[in-house]
Amino acid sequence: MVSGSSFVVEGERVLLLSDSGEKLLVVAKRTMHKVRGLGAVDMASFIGKEWGSTVDLGGQAWFLVRPSIRDAIETMERGAQIITPKDAALIAMYCDVRSGSMVLEAGTGSGALTMVLAGLVAPSGKVVSYDNRKEHQAVAARNLERSGLGGCVELKGGDVTGPIPERGMDAVVLDIMEPWKAVGTARECLRASGHLASYSPTANQVEMTVRALRDRGFREVVSLELMLRNMVVGEGGIRPSFDMLGHTGYLTFARRL
Amino acid sequence: MVSGSSFVVEGERVLLLSDSGEKLLVVAKRTMHKVRGLGAVDMASFIGKEWGSTVDLGGQAWFLVRPSIRDAIETMERGAQIITPKDAALIAMYCDVRSGSMVLEAGTGSGALTMVLAGLVAPSGKVVSYDNRKEHQAVAARNLERSGLGGCVELKGGDVTGPIPERGMDAVVLDIMEPWKAVGTARECLRASGHLASYSPTANQVEMTVRALRDRGFREVVSLELMLRNMVVGEGGIRPSFDMLGHTGYLTFARRL
Amino acid sequence: MVSGSSFVVEGERVLLLSDSGEKLLVVAKRTMHKVRGLGAVDMASFIGKEWGSTVDLGGQAWFLVRPSIRDAIETMERGAQIITPKDAALIAMYCDVRSGSMVLEAGTGSGALTMVLAGLVAPSGKVVSYDNRKEHQAVAARNLERSGLGGCVELKGGDVTGPIPERGMDAVVLDIMEPWKAVGTARECLRASGHLASYSPTANQVEMTVRALRDRGFREVVSLELMLRNMVVGEGGIRPSFDMLGHTGYLTFARRL
Amino acid sequence: MVSGSSFVVEGERVLLLSDSGEKLLVVAKRTMHKVRGLGAVDMASFIGKEWGSTVDLGGQAWFLVRPSIRDAIETMERGAQIITPKDAALIAMYCDVRSGSMVLEAGTGSGALTMVLAGLVAPSGKVVSYDNRKEHQAVAARNLERSGLGGCVELKGGDVTGPIPERGMDAVVLDIMEPWKAVGTARECLRASGHLASYSPTANQVEMTVRALRDRGFREVVSLELMLRNMVVGEGGIRPSFDMLGHTGYLTFARRL
Repeated sequence: MVSGSSFVVEGERVLLLSDSGEKLLVVAKRTMHKVRGLGAVDMASFIGKEWGSTVDLGGQAWFLVRPSIRDAIETMERGAQIITPKDAALIAMYCDVRSGSMVLEAGTGSGALTMVLAGLVAPSGKVVSYDNRKEHQAVAARNLERSGLGGCVELKGGDVTGPIPERGMDAVVLDIMEPWKAVGTARECLRASGHLASYSPTANQVEMTVRALRDRGFREVVSLELMLRNMVVGEGGIRPSFDMLGHTGYLTFARRL
Repeated sequence: MVSGSSFVVEGERVLLLSDSGEKLLVVAKRTMHKVRGLGAVDMASFIGKEWGSTVDLGGQAWFLVRPSIRDAIETMERGAQIITPKDAALIAMYCDVRSGSMVLEAGTGSGALTMVLAGLVAPSGKVVSYDNRKEHQAVAARNLERSGLGGCVELKGGDVTGPIPERGMDAVVLDIMEPWKAVGTARECLRASGHLASYSPTANQVEMTVRALRDRGFREVVSLELMLRNMVVGEGGIRPSFDMLGHTGYLTFARRL
Repeated sequence: MVSGSSFVVEGERVLLLSDSGEKLLVVAKRTMHKVRGLGAVDMASFIGKEWGSTVDLGGQAWFLVRPSIRDAIETMERGAQIITPKDAALIAMYCDVRSGSMVLEAGTGSGALTMVLAGLVAPSGKVVSYDNRKEHQAVAARNLERSGLGGCVELKGGDVTGPIPERGMDAVVLDIMEPWKAVGTARECLRASGHLASYSPTANQVEMTVRALRDRGFREVVSLELMLRNMVVGEGGIRPSFDMLGHTGYLTFARRL
Repeated sequence: MVSGSSFVVEGERVLLLSDSGEKLLVVAKRTMHKVRGLGAVDMASFIGKEWGSTVDLGGQAWFLVRPSIRDAIETMERGAQIITPKDAALIAMYCDVRSGSMVLEAGTGSGALTMVLAGLVAPSGKVVSYDNRKEHQAVAARNLERSGLGGCVELKGGDVTGPIPERGMDAVVLDIMEPWKAVGTARECLRASGHLASYSPTANQVEMTVRALRDRGFREVVSLELMLRNMVVGEGGIRPSFDMLGHTGYLTFARRL
């Protein structure tokens, strides 16, 4: 992200981007690495190359790109349905997540939202992320390691519907099956004025969560959904895309007061 | 944002939030301040109060709330149509704006997007924001000052369709009438892998901008729109809101490679 | 609707359309009629005038327009929330309502959907419309009379959650609070292959109706919503409208087999 | 459509509907017919069977269903992109198409919209449909024949951007590449108060058509798009469908006055 040298430095993450849009996230270090479709690649060969220049791998030109958080998400290992960037972005905005924020997340899943939050709270903030499914934690740990975004993250096992020790958090983000059961815990963890976000696919989950938030005295309770539609520019002009993801999840927000 | 004392400290911004959802952004300092609808209010009276507690003003209870960036936008002085949080959030996400980022913005307008970007790049990054309309600059300067988010911002007069001195920027964000005319300048200002975003209300603007970006060799050019719809939970159950903003603007993104 | 004389004939309905888009539905007959905003108007003065020509009323030019079903809906007396043309159109399409169809409706409300259905089944079909609220029936009766669309309609009092005498209907259209309670009755009224439609604002109503339809062996059960957004063509080009109705109701369809 | 005998009569169209939702449109007549996937089927075997009952074909149960217009569209032979039922329904509604209407269509395409219009104007109205592409006309003719909806339809070759003989039409429906070029012809063909509809995928087409309509003095010019999203009811509750068609086409409507 942050502007640095114009050349790839040893140890940096590099996004390899092909002409057809394929993406591979690697680390420029002195090892050979087996890359799907490309065989063994000498990762050291990228060191000292200029950012934005191309290298030839497997007979194809690949751009050397500084990876963004979205690149990390698009190239991550998937063990569960992951949150989309549009939803992650709105959660971060509505929860006021920025450098220094203390954020509690439940559940971690594959770590997509964790990476977004970690990227935003760095370098001085922290993301504590709970998941009681061991296999998800393992996937998330690998994704955080691979993306280099794990520095501010603490992965924890356990269930946030019961008591947990965190206090004074700036934000609590819920991506669990029964978020209404975690509203009480969330209240205890949040500082005054702190933000809660919950992500749920069904209208039933939203209704129960909203009622629980109102019952617990949360303020500024709003639920919404974001629909993203691409525009296509072709020879004949401009039109909305025929392809569209009809639904990801509903977002519910509230503030502890 | 960041968790600090549980009590309001002199000099801090305080959001006054009424039961009916009215919001006022003030500074806790030793002066009287005339507030619309409340008359003269002693700003020193908030110092030492607990965050989340209420004060009585004009016969009504007001919560003392730590203001978020969204609060700053919702309470800002408006001299021009401002960008919505959903669009600002996606711009920040797709442009990978985070602590330390160097961002170029054109035009400043009332400074809503500037505040979002400034809040995210702080404390070590910077937002350079151009506008060639003096009255907008004045409004934006007041909004940045009032919100306390102006520390990382440099406001500049001038037109980004011609040459400007900035180089190596991580992101360029355009909110101008003819963004296709600024694509060349944007290219010069951006570092390799850097992100461009453009916000435009009409399909015609999007089409011209996309064609200009393709002509200039930008990669990962995508245009889209975000539709946000609230959900309403009432006695009878849950349904989408009848009220909806049908359109804000199209977003176009690209990467310099 | 149907092409007839080029001139207004005594007894025909006439839509008066002003330059600003105001609409008044009147009957060309030999009486004076008090029209809101225009005072007493001689309705006979329209007889023999050419369709599409203008008359001067109250210092303003009004077009003499052959009214469509939509004109009838837009100018009707409203005693309850009425269905939008987009939803009425899809109901008619998915229920295969056309000339000769036998349709059962519950509840009548102000008669907006009744008018659409009546216009489509004419001249040989029939719409039987139930409502157990007397005041709605009275409003609907007036709207049907005024629009001239009532010829094929039979208004009935009563509740379709219990037994009713109709059999062999081509379609049953439900716009009631608890449509799931009327699914059994609907099944008895419908011929084999007949269509059911239900219109409901909340997701909870949809869920209960869908489950009831599945339980009763209905086929091709689908629920959906239609979002309509206008496009605005102005000097600067074309864009979606800022104004949009976020939600009207969900539509559920099924077929008796 | 219209309620008739409870038993399939020789010569009637029959929709075969399988448990998995597969649909086949056949005619109950004394011939063998080769059906894709089922081999030779004796069409006479359906005669006298009760509507809604099942027959065994290829080891699977198939319902005998009275076909709707939508069934005809879903089972038609496709030679070109066809209009969706939601768009066809709104065109019919906004153009006030009903029994007896005289409708001009250009271009015919595969005849999907033609079938909808023909089903609605029957038995006393007429649809004149132009297409200057011979192969489309042939496909449309077969689809109209097969569906039994062709009785009120006249297919014509030719281009509606030049003069055509039709006059006094109730509605003109355009589904052509450059609808703005046909606006003058449409005006000549329409009776006063008559309706025009145009269906176009791109925003550019809409803009040019709207400007042409305004220039020619059309009234009540509106453009819009309809978005249809399914709702899914599953064990976990109700949510919008992940699958969604993002765009079909924009609809533009106007009235000749």
